[in-house]
Amino acid sequence: MSNDPLVVFTPSGKRGRFPAGTPVLTAARQLGVDLDSVCGGRGICSKCQITPSYGDFAKHGVTVADDALSDWNKVEQRYKDKRGLIDGRRLGCQARVEKDVVIDVPPESQVHKQVVRKRAEARDITLNPSVRLVYVEVEEPDMHKPSGDLERLCEALDKQWQIKDVNSDLHVVQTLQPVLRKGGWKVTVALHQAEANQPPRIMHIWPGYYDGTVYGLAVDLGSTTIAAHLCDLKSGAVVASSGIMNPQIRFGEDLMSRVSYSMMNKGGDTEMTRAVREGMNALFAQISGEANIDPSLIMDAVFVCNPVMHHLFVGIDPFELGQAPFALATSNALTLKAQDLNLDLHPAARVYLLPCIAGHVGADAAAVALSEAPDKSEDLVLVVDVGTNAEILLGNKDRVLACSSPTGPAFEGAQISSGQRAAPGAIERVEINPETKEPRFRVIGSDIWSDEPGFRESIATTGISGICGSGIIEVIAEMRLAGLLDASGLIGSAAQTGSARCVPEGRTHAYLLWDGTAEGGPRITVTNPDIRAIQMAKAALYSGARLLMDKIGVETVDRVVLAGAFGAHISAKHAMVLGMIPDCPLDKVTSAGNAAGTGARIALLNIEARREIETTVRQIEKIETAVEPRFQEHFVNASAIPNATEPFPILKTVVSLPDVSFNAGGGDGDAAGGRRRRRRG
Amino acid sequence: MSNDPLVVFTPSGKRGRFPAGTPVLTAARQLGVDLDSVCGGRGICSKCQITPSYGDFAKHGVTVADDALSDWNKVEQRYKDKRGLIDGRRLGCQARVEKDVVIDVPPESQVHKQVVRKRAEARDITLNPSVRLVYVEVEEPDMHKPSGDLERLCEALDKQWQIKDVNSDLHVVQTLQPVLRKGGWKVTVALHQAEANQPPRIMHIWPGYYDGTVYGLAVDLGSTTIAAHLCDLKSGAVVASSGIMNPQIRFGEDLMSRVSYSMMNKGGDTEMTRAVREGMNALFAQISGEANIDPSLIMDAVFVCNPVMHHLFVGIDPFELGQAPFALATSNALTLKAQDLNLDLHPAARVYLLPCIAGHVGADAAAVALSEAPDKSEDLVLVVDVGTNAEILLGNKDRVLACSSPTGPAFEGAQISSGQRAAPGAIERVEINPETKEPRFRVIGSDIWSDEPGFRESIATTGISGICGSGIIEVIAEMRLAGLLDASGLIGSAAQTGSARCVPEGRTHAYLLWDGTAEGGPRITVTNPDIRAIQMAKAALYSGARLLMDKIGVETVDRVVLAGAFGAHISAKHAMVLGMIPDCPLDKVTSAGNAAGTGARIALLNIEARREIETTVRQIEKIETAVEPRFQEHFVNASAIPNATEPFPILKTVVSLPDVSFNAGGGDGDAAGGRRRRRRG
Repeated sequence: MSNDPLVVFTPSGKRGRFPAGTPVLTAARQLGVDLDSVCGGRGICSKCQITPSYGDFAKHGVTVADDALSDWNKVEQRYKDKRGLIDGRRLGCQARVEKDVVIDVPPESQVHKQVVRKRAEARDITLNPSVRLVYVEVEEPDMHKPSGDLERLCEALDKQWQIKDVNSDLHVVQTLQPVLRKGGWKVTVALHQAEANQPPRIMHIWPGYYDGTVYGLAVDLGSTTIAAHLCDLKSGAVVASSGIMNPQIRFGEDLMSRVSYSMMNKGGDTEMTRAVREGMNALFAQISGEANIDPSLIMDAVFVCNPVMHHLFVGIDPFELGQAPFALATSNALTLKAQDLNLDLHPAARVYLLPCIAGHVGADAAAVALSEAPDKSEDLVLVVDVGTNAEILLGNKDRVLACSSPTGPAFEGAQISSGQRAAPGAIERVEINPETKEPRFRVIGSDIWSDEPGFRESIATTGISGICGSGIIEVIAEMRLAGLLDASGLIGSAAQTGSARCVPEGRTHAYLLWDGTAEGGPRITVTNPDIRAIQMAKAALYSGARLLMDKIGVETVDRVVLAGAFGAHISAKHAMVLGMIPDCPLDKVTSAGNAAGTGARIALLNIEARREIETTVRQIEKIETAVEPRFQEHFVNASAIPNATEPFPILKTVVSLPDVSFNAGGGDGDAAGGRRRRRRG
Repeated sequence: MSNDPLVVFTPSGKRGRFPAGTPVLTAARQLGVDLDSVCGGRGICSKCQITPSYGDFAKHGVTVADDALSDWNKVEQRYKDKRGLIDGRRLGCQARVEKDVVIDVPPESQVHKQVVRKRAEARDITLNPSVRLVYVEVEEPDMHKPSGDLERLCEALDKQWQIKDVNSDLHVVQTLQPVLRKGGWKVTVALHQAEANQPPRIMHIWPGYYDGTVYGLAVDLGSTTIAAHLCDLKSGAVVASSGIMNPQIRFGEDLMSRVSYSMMNKGGDTEMTRAVREGMNALFAQISGEANIDPSLIMDAVFVCNPVMHHLFVGIDPFELGQAPFALATSNALTLKAQDLNLDLHPAARVYLLPCIAGHVGADAAAVALSEAPDKSEDLVLVVDVGTNAEILLGNKDRVLACSSPTGPAFEGAQISSGQRAAPGAIERVEINPETKEPRFRVIGSDIWSDEPGFRESIATTGISGICGSGIIEVIAEMRLAGLLDASGLIGSAAQTGSARCVPEGRTHAYLLWDGTAEGGPRITVTNPDIRAIQMAKAALYSGARLLMDKIGVETVDRVVLAGAFGAHISAKHAMVLGMIPDCPLDKVTSAGNAAGTGARIALLNIEARREIETTVRQIEKIETAVEPRFQEHFVNASAIPNATEPFPILKTVVSLPDVSFNAGGGDGDAAGGRRRRRRG
């Protein structure tokens, strides 16, 4: 055993002996300890800060003397004076090992730090972005050994960082010379490497040591809205979040009407491509403005979207997605030049689009799979991302299935008589007293329930304008719980229900939720066509989930994850009363928020996650609901709203459902039959 | 030894035994015989035509029976009826081996055919372009196994052609779907592969079997003119050649004035970049028009140019090239997207720029090196490419040196009192009778000498407008040979020379070559400043060559190659009389024509030649004339025009030089001293 000093790094536990005088950074590199450095040990960047520990460390078998490291030096003092350094910290490139020592690498000095996610159950993200900064000193040109400035820069990267076979973008070649001279042949280089086995590419160079950071965008491109998170690629932190309406809306509210627009109008796809890219650039300008950064510092972007949005964004006519067999032009992940998509990011930026799972199950579903990782789950998890289409994943570590179900826009408040988007003034929460049949509700923009003091004042600016998706789910479920609705979805008359709020409307009845006419406001009712629309939507969702359960051969799932903005707002209880999702203990139903956006963020911050989801997507079993006879069967049977005559083991402990029917006859039996058939499946 | 039939292929001599019934194409592939096929053996493309030989082949040890191949079949008959097939030819994919057979692969059936160059001494080019066409049948989409159309196309390339890991341009992804459907899932794919170890890239797909060809451009981008050859990438043939003036001329006649323009005018480099690219596109349109092809069928292009043109074309400010140490932004070869240079070629086309040798020795010199291959020469060869700068290569298979010498524009007729570009009306050839001192000459646009009958008529349309570069060289050399000029370059008076054509002009004399004033035309004289300009130019050229000879340590070279348009027009005798090039047997001085353009064509037709020249350029020793004291010394001593008082062993057998001097005194001694010093060097 050598007599060289022993160095133990925490938290990794990596250890080794090094000759006295070895810089801590050198020791860390040789042991493969995750210790950052941008300047390559020149005492400029201070990324390699470490904390030596002194005293007796029984568990490491080391006693650390006070003089275990070389003395505090001038470079460290200068850095401390200029920028500040926490007491006890040293610069790893300056401090040299003299005797046995234990050295802690604080999280901020780790390259591959953990980015902690808010939800307790979610895995943290290991930071490993596609863009990396390094500082190099380049040899000056010499007439006698003529070689290009770029070639000498590449030589420096090889010699000083062992980074070989570097490519560079035309943009860099074009702008290289003045930067090298401005920096006195010392420059900071942004290197892009989207895959470990690909040669790195120079994206940008700054004169001298660049002390700033670079950014990436995680973008969730939805049919209705485009939402983006701007992330600091050095810390992994979200520095701004922003969203805009998808400007394609003027060509059609939902996906199929946009596909139709492109079919009916020559060049329509090109128009929509231009619109979404222009929208994207408006969003980028907005989010850069919010974060007060130069948009050209955005050097990477990840996009998730459904297949139609994907094709229109990339510039592919979505024609084939409008008809069987719903063939994608390409299903694999795409890495493209931002410039080729006319995106106003850094001129050398590449963008990454997650793979599509199938013609109806897009990169957004892939992103949900990356975020929620059903393929790593021990128990059987159902993940539903509800939008105009519901994307459904079911599986565990053995097997994952995916399908898409055409829920239509009812869940988003469209096709509902008093429906509206989730915006201030929309009723979002509803309760109905089972005794009095009277409602109380809450409106977006106010935290006060309608029967609480101060409600009127709290909605003075927004008013009450309509009812949004989560509101319509709740009011229908509450109507059912209050006995105002039978299992087939028919609203009872005032006589049948004993509530004056059940008013005649056409040949059926409606439930009067709010009458604002006295003040010039709307009269908000829930009509039978509203209930039918929701029944269709929830039947589609439920049937998709059931179909996947059939394929796996199960009757129940262990847990349910509701993803998407809608999923974040609906109450699990009401969703289950309505029969939107299969039975499951209520405490096993969680909301993942914008899981697609989170998946995009994971892929942005960790390039290995891109390879991971590409592999996962290839392994996911794709089920096409449009050609599955059992889907139609489930759909027909799933339109009823469950009632208490059936065994309802989980919900009955939570809520008690009255047994009512307003049908002329047989309707209830139908619904029960539906449940029975389902159980047989 | 197996009893299977023996198959011998000619001209390769490759042989092997195959089970009876093996298609000839299959046997050829297994033996690595160079037999073309685009359709993969489906009897569509007819590229695999072969000629079986029958009878006794002692040298192959084979006797070929009449039934050695399977019978002529329907596919072959159909092809012959539709397209014609030379008698005796068979389709290699249809004809099957039954007995021992000798099979000839005619040149047009070889993928890597030889493209023969016109000059006897030049190596042929083995055709191996970057673009290749293959025909594939793609699986149709299946809802139950959703994968993108592109992914199924790639699968087909792998299964049917063993072509793996294929990338594709965004353009292809965007346009793929309708093409696949139009072709009924049968398509022809253009694959681009600029390097053997790079993954191939889909550039284009055609519905069904595409029977046409694809094209490439070899472009010589000069300071004054841009010249292009359009080549058929399947046959290697030049199908059209065309040229235009470089539109950058409006920013400055020569390189340094353009560099100055960019230094003096903010955005000047961008203006010049735009101008040259626009000119390029005009040239492409013109050459496509001449060949009557769609410019989008041009799928590859190779560019050669000097460093300043290189930088301006790529979009790099040439600022640094205007001052020591003449640092190139990049010296390596570049492969760029045509679109990134705003070139109107196929949208997925890549373009290739040869490497630059040094700040003054560009990709054009690299192309000359590729064409003339001094690095493969057994004897010591001096290659000079004369333009505004002369690029000079000297070497053999052991060692090659390169430099550039600032000859200025005199050789191109600029800075000459009656000078003009080589265009109709310019005097290009001159002879002076040593007895009478009277000239005869020829004018561009006419084959008749000025003292021959019919001369006046032959120049009726062009007139006589001036004297071009080759004309000025000849007239000065002839003046020297006729004793009108002394070694220092002074023109004698009428009294001294006995010629009335030696007329006073300022403080010296001029030689009256042509007086057209009676007919309203110009008076064309050769003045002493003209001779000084040519002396400066030839001294620069000679000094560069001498400098390289010094470096190698030789006094003579084995042969001289004159490259460039100018090199093609000047006579070796006159160049040597003038002292432009070092002494060398006259029959060892050859003209290579536009060797830079030829080098571009070689790199276009054979991708391995690109790697070859990249390696060669790295090995070439670069000499910077601007900082070599010996260059200045040579230059000072080389301005004289050699005379017969010196030993002139080679030329004296060819021409006899009178010993004259019109100097007040000492001038001749100067020149002689120069020669002496040179011989000492």
